[in-house]
Amino acid sequence: MLRAISAPTIDHRGPDFATLALDVLAALKPVFGTTGPVVVYPSSGTGAWEAALVNTLSPGDRVLAFETGHFATLWREVATNLGLDVDFVPGDWRHGVDPAAVTEKLRQDPSIKAVCVVHNETSTGVTSRIPEIRAAIDEAEHSALLLVDTVSSLGSVDYRHDEWGVDVTVSCSQKGLLLPPGLGFNAVSEKALRAGGGFAKSYWDWRPILAANERGYFPYTPPTNLLYGLKESLALLNEEGLDNVFARHLRHAKATRAAVRGWGLEVLCLDDREHSPVLTAVLVPDGHDADKIRALILDRFNMSLGTGLGRLAGRVFRIGHLGHFNDVSLAGTLSGVQMGLTIAGLSVDPAGITAALHVLESA
Amino acid sequence: MLRAISAPTIDHRGPDFATLALDVLAALKPVFGTTGPVVVYPSSGTGAWEAALVNTLSPGDRVLAFETGHFATLWREVATNLGLDVDFVPGDWRHGVDPAAVTEKLRQDPSIKAVCVVHNETSTGVTSRIPEIRAAIDEAEHSALLLVDTVSSLGSVDYRHDEWGVDVTVSCSQKGLLLPPGLGFNAVSEKALRAGGGFAKSYWDWRPILAANERGYFPYTPPTNLLYGLKESLALLNEEGLDNVFARHLRHAKATRAAVRGWGLEVLCLDDREHSPVLTAVLVPDGHDADKIRALILDRFNMSLGTGLGRLAGRVFRIGHLGHFNDVSLAGTLSGVQMGLTIAGLSVDPAGITAALHVLESA
Amino acid sequence: MLRAISAPTIDHRGPDFATLALDVLAALKPVFGTTGPVVVYPSSGTGAWEAALVNTLSPGDRVLAFETGHFATLWREVATNLGLDVDFVPGDWRHGVDPAAVTEKLRQDPSIKAVCVVHNETSTGVTSRIPEIRAAIDEAEHSALLLVDTVSSLGSVDYRHDEWGVDVTVSCSQKGLLLPPGLGFNAVSEKALRAGGGFAKSYWDWRPILAANERGYFPYTPPTNLLYGLKESLALLNEEGLDNVFARHLRHAKATRAAVRGWGLEVLCLDDREHSPVLTAVLVPDGHDADKIRALILDRFNMSLGTGLGRLAGRVFRIGHLGHFNDVSLAGTLSGVQMGLTIAGLSVDPAGITAALHVLESA
Amino acid sequence: MLRAISAPTIDHRGPDFATLALDVLAALKPVFGTTGPVVVYPSSGTGAWEAALVNTLSPGDRVLAFETGHFATLWREVATNLGLDVDFVPGDWRHGVDPAAVTEKLRQDPSIKAVCVVHNETSTGVTSRIPEIRAAIDEAEHSALLLVDTVSSLGSVDYRHDEWGVDVTVSCSQKGLLLPPGLGFNAVSEKALRAGGGFAKSYWDWRPILAANERGYFPYTPPTNLLYGLKESLALLNEEGLDNVFARHLRHAKATRAAVRGWGLEVLCLDDREHSPVLTAVLVPDGHDADKIRALILDRFNMSLGTGLGRLAGRVFRIGHLGHFNDVSLAGTLSGVQMGLTIAGLSVDPAGITAALHVLESA
Repeated sequence: MLRAISAPTIDHRGPDFATLALDVLAALKPVFGTTGPVVVYPSSGTGAWEAALVNTLSPGDRVLAFETGHFATLWREVATNLGLDVDFVPGDWRHGVDPAAVTEKLRQDPSIKAVCVVHNETSTGVTSRIPEIRAAIDEAEHSALLLVDTVSSLGSVDYRHDEWGVDVTVSCSQKGLLLPPGLGFNAVSEKALRAGGGFAKSYWDWRPILAANERGYFPYTPPTNLLYGLKESLALLNEEGLDNVFARHLRHAKATRAAVRGWGLEVLCLDDREHSPVLTAVLVPDGHDADKIRALILDRFNMSLGTGLGRLAGRVFRIGHLGHFNDVSLAGTLSGVQMGLTIAGLSVDPAGITAALHVLESA
Repeated sequence: MLRAISAPTIDHRGPDFATLALDVLAALKPVFGTTGPVVVYPSSGTGAWEAALVNTLSPGDRVLAFETGHFATLWREVATNLGLDVDFVPGDWRHGVDPAAVTEKLRQDPSIKAVCVVHNETSTGVTSRIPEIRAAIDEAEHSALLLVDTVSSLGSVDYRHDEWGVDVTVSCSQKGLLLPPGLGFNAVSEKALRAGGGFAKSYWDWRPILAANERGYFPYTPPTNLLYGLKESLALLNEEGLDNVFARHLRHAKATRAAVRGWGLEVLCLDDREHSPVLTAVLVPDGHDADKIRALILDRFNMSLGTGLGRLAGRVFRIGHLGHFNDVSLAGTLSGVQMGLTIAGLSVDPAGITAALHVLESA
Repeated sequence: MLRAISAPTIDHRGPDFATLALDVLAALKPVFGTTGPVVVYPSSGTGAWEAALVNTLSPGDRVLAFETGHFATLWREVATNLGLDVDFVPGDWRHGVDPAAVTEKLRQDPSIKAVCVVHNETSTGVTSRIPEIRAAIDEAEHSALLLVDTVSSLGSVDYRHDEWGVDVTVSCSQKGLLLPPGLGFNAVSEKALRAGGGFAKSYWDWRPILAANERGYFPYTPPTNLLYGLKESLALLNEEGLDNVFARHLRHAKATRAAVRGWGLEVLCLDDREHSPVLTAVLVPDGHDADKIRALILDRFNMSLGTGLGRLAGRVFRIGHLGHFNDVSLAGTLSGVQMGLTIAGLSVDPAGITAALHVLESA
Repeated sequence: MLRAISAPTIDHRGPDFATLALDVLAALKPVFGTTGPVVVYPSSGTGAWEAALVNTLSPGDRVLAFETGHFATLWREVATNLGLDVDFVPGDWRHGVDPAAVTEKLRQDPSIKAVCVVHNETSTGVTSRIPEIRAAIDEAEHSALLLVDTVSSLGSVDYRHDEWGVDVTVSCSQKGLLLPPGLGFNAVSEKALRAGGGFAKSYWDWRPILAANERGYFPYTPPTNLLYGLKESLALLNEEGLDNVFARHLRHAKATRAAVRGWGLEVLCLDDREHSPVLTAVLVPDGHDADKIRALILDRFNMSLGTGLGRLAGRVFRIGHLGHFNDVSLAGTLSGVQMGLTIAGLSVDPAGITAALHVLESA
């Protein structure tokens, strides 16, 4: 993929570019589970958050969001910066969005224009159950748009923009698609397209982009080299098969939890329906500093675990099992964690790794 | 450079990234001729246009701009899309901004908040004289900000953000810096920073970026791989020496005009003080279609000339002499144009190429 | 191609390697104009010279060779080093092998076991006419093998191993195939295979290689990454079409000679049937040092011309028009030479470049 | 490293090449433990075997070699092909060369001209003790040259050409130096240089290469792109520190043996002084086919173990722990083997992995 990115940049107004763009834009749709358009920005994922909001809402609009973790909190900040009025439901960072709370909130407040949900909270290893949230909105007979962040789930976790009735799915290039950062995505429902919204906008405006995309072009200079990489990335996903990719992530998450529990430690996520297939956050026992353990493991094994973000600082470390990972690399990762925990003086049971291997063997 | 871009993406929250970012952010300043900050976005140049506007102005603000060509017109559109009130002075696409007109307009309208100028109009091969425009603003004793687009001049043409009193210099990665597209830049004066502006903003907001940049970080995921490339690109520019790079572009522009006039054709730019060092637009004689000539040259010599944009469609072709170009490649380009014009049936004088070589020899 | 070479090395005993090797070995044949085997060595071209000799001859065997230039002289040295008895016919470095001399030599000496000919002498820009040499051997009714070096012609100049009755065609990766050095080739006739030869040999022995090649393997570790590049290189040649590649080189050679004569200078090659399609050696007038001119052109235009080798030192420079070259890059090269000659004080006629463009236009 | 290899090929007769070559040739010496010359060939390791023989011996010379495994047997074949008279001492493939046998053989046969030893037998995971073999030659007061193959040990295992009195050390690029195949090496003692040998030779002849190397050149086209890679590779080794690299390989070998014994299986190597630091061969119990287990592990875990070569076919598999490997990747590899053995129905003790982690933890 990285070699693909280093190919010479072609003219983005020429016919070869159009062929590339049409191919890539078509191949993106199944990853989002949509037959509708996917808008591609030269931006980070943060830009794609902003785009989802300014294309569907108006300044001052009321938005419902849930404090499921660090990234939900950051998205709230973006919305607030843009002048939206966010009803931010507090949470304990150990659960996803509660569908019942969605129904209740919407029933109480007919002025809500959009519900914002982070599908997979990278800071906690907890997912939110999008189909149930969709059902909760329907149960409230409410017209709010459903905006979903899939930054860390897309291409790794089963996701169905159309079937689940999502209005805007936000994502980007650098997680499950295994690319360098630099591409932001919005998959867009017809309802979202019609919403329009009252924000003055130019760069993020879906309409000129979708118009130009029809013939394979962009209204401004596209990030051609990342599109080369995206083409390769989508081909790799299709070669393995999306269903196989999803199954692999579920298997790795299960094996990781087996190791964690085998060590005698606690997984942060409290609801068995909400375990993230792409990462597992582990609580360290009282009296230990998760960041010191992380530093030890980085120093000793050149292996970087995720830090505890926000209110979880020092209390958790996160084991990623995302992307181009296989059973052997997961076993290596879990071995490294086990050794690091042992060296750090936690009395973890060495049978943790054996429990994980047992899960992987029996798959 | 492209090989640099294909290096594995490092963690943008780690110390290696901070070292890279601090290096690159420091090395960018001399290219802009500034000791102040340069903001780097994961975006196209269009995004950097938008950023310059939303960080300094408020919705409804009056902006002065000049129809020097296609890209000035597009920037005007961005401003209008964002709800700014643009006074767009018509032009003939053969001249840069007239400093006298700047003074006159500013004297007439004290409400103008910013003057927008495209330094090098890629569509016409005409530059605007920024120091004289600065002087014109000063002469009008007007407080308007000066915003300058250097998308196609930065790193190829002498430019001095500080000395010339520019408030925001807009640029991007894919022209003189020879990188793939994906990075937008804003060099920012203290006055611009103080302006603040009343737009609700998040992604484009300079303040959190500048705050994070101080320690080498970014508030959201930066385009790490393009920063690798930028580091290489800046090193290459420094190796040749910026002054040598500027002199080379001036020499190539002079040789190109010698060829054009040698062929008996007309250069679009009418003012000798305003010839672009990075491209030359050539008028084709009546009765000939510039795009047919371009198609013939592409087909026969695999050489892509710039098309006539907007009102120049069919009437001009553009010869680029930008970036990593040397005397031999320029001579090859001009030879290709000469052969193409001959094959297309224009009775051009074959001494055109000889005149160009003469300029290059005597440099 | 270079990006292809940087792909991770695969196991050369696995099935993916076999597929690669079978593809590449098959795709090499048409470039040699053979339906027989082509042996690939991890070696330089010098190794392929040695391989051709030790697989067909015995120590002390008599070999006929011709002093057509520097590389013919070097091949003679290899043969002498190996203990062969070389009859080396003197030459003036301005002609190819004289077919009549071949017949005459063979008639005089029935003990000759092989005739060695360099198809395209890189040091002189003179080719030898292989079909006429074949006819000359036949006319002498002599059983000598015909060994031909195509190091600098293969993939650029029409060549027909089978049709022309060549027994071993020697070549390598770094000229017309546009690869880095590291691969040596022997295309082998049935007669050559039967010859066997009495040299003790191991690394160069065709037999175990051909046996292993049948299933896509090699008896020792092959240069896998260069085979990746070779696959790309052969695909590129086929995309353009070998006949188009050959025509392009002939056109460029003709245009180059037009420039040289237009400048009032002399081409080294004296026989119009023997001009090299891939390079042109130019005599500098008495009183000028070709190497000083070359140094000036390198310094001023960053363009490297070939030096005069052996007895031609200081008297010629060589203009290459080999490989992935197009009309525009040739025109640039010739422009650079013209400017360099002018700056060096030779009174060359500036119409040289114009004459070359005229040839290219009318193709 | 692979990116380094994909840089454009520079002129091997220019000054930049000479700088590169002088750097690389100097940096190679410490890896061999020599202050003398190291000859670099465009060849496989097999070519470097041949070069060691033809530069020091004469046809018909008597050579002493030992059947320590598959590669010792192949080297014997090369020697035999070249017409040398090899006294090949049979072995059980579970021991290195017996120094006592060396003394005994040399005492019996004063005509022996060279002793050939494979330092690390890739087929068996057994090393030979070079310093003791040197002492054994000295004890016999015999003038035979000592030729050592370090194909799979160089850059991974402590090796001292000068201190251990080796005459020719043979190696190549694709193992411990982590490069693609294509470079063969001979480190050469003064005694070896003086030997000269009576073979007719050209390509392999050390003398013209060493003469040209003095100024950074080669007598024939060198494999420039692999030299780029070699420069990077040597820099990487120096960054980690050769002693650290050696210690890492020893630690990984120890951990691997702990796992093997933990599983209840047998390591092929029978002498504790001779365990290979770079790979471990494991005997499978009677009734099991090692290749079926390997196929299962490849299919299920995409992990390729070494096959049993020659007489070991079906009876062993080989675990490599060579090159750019760290504790975590070793743990992953051993996990994959453990899972594969379990799935294959061997009743291995799952504490094998735990034993290995214990070794790695306590390092």
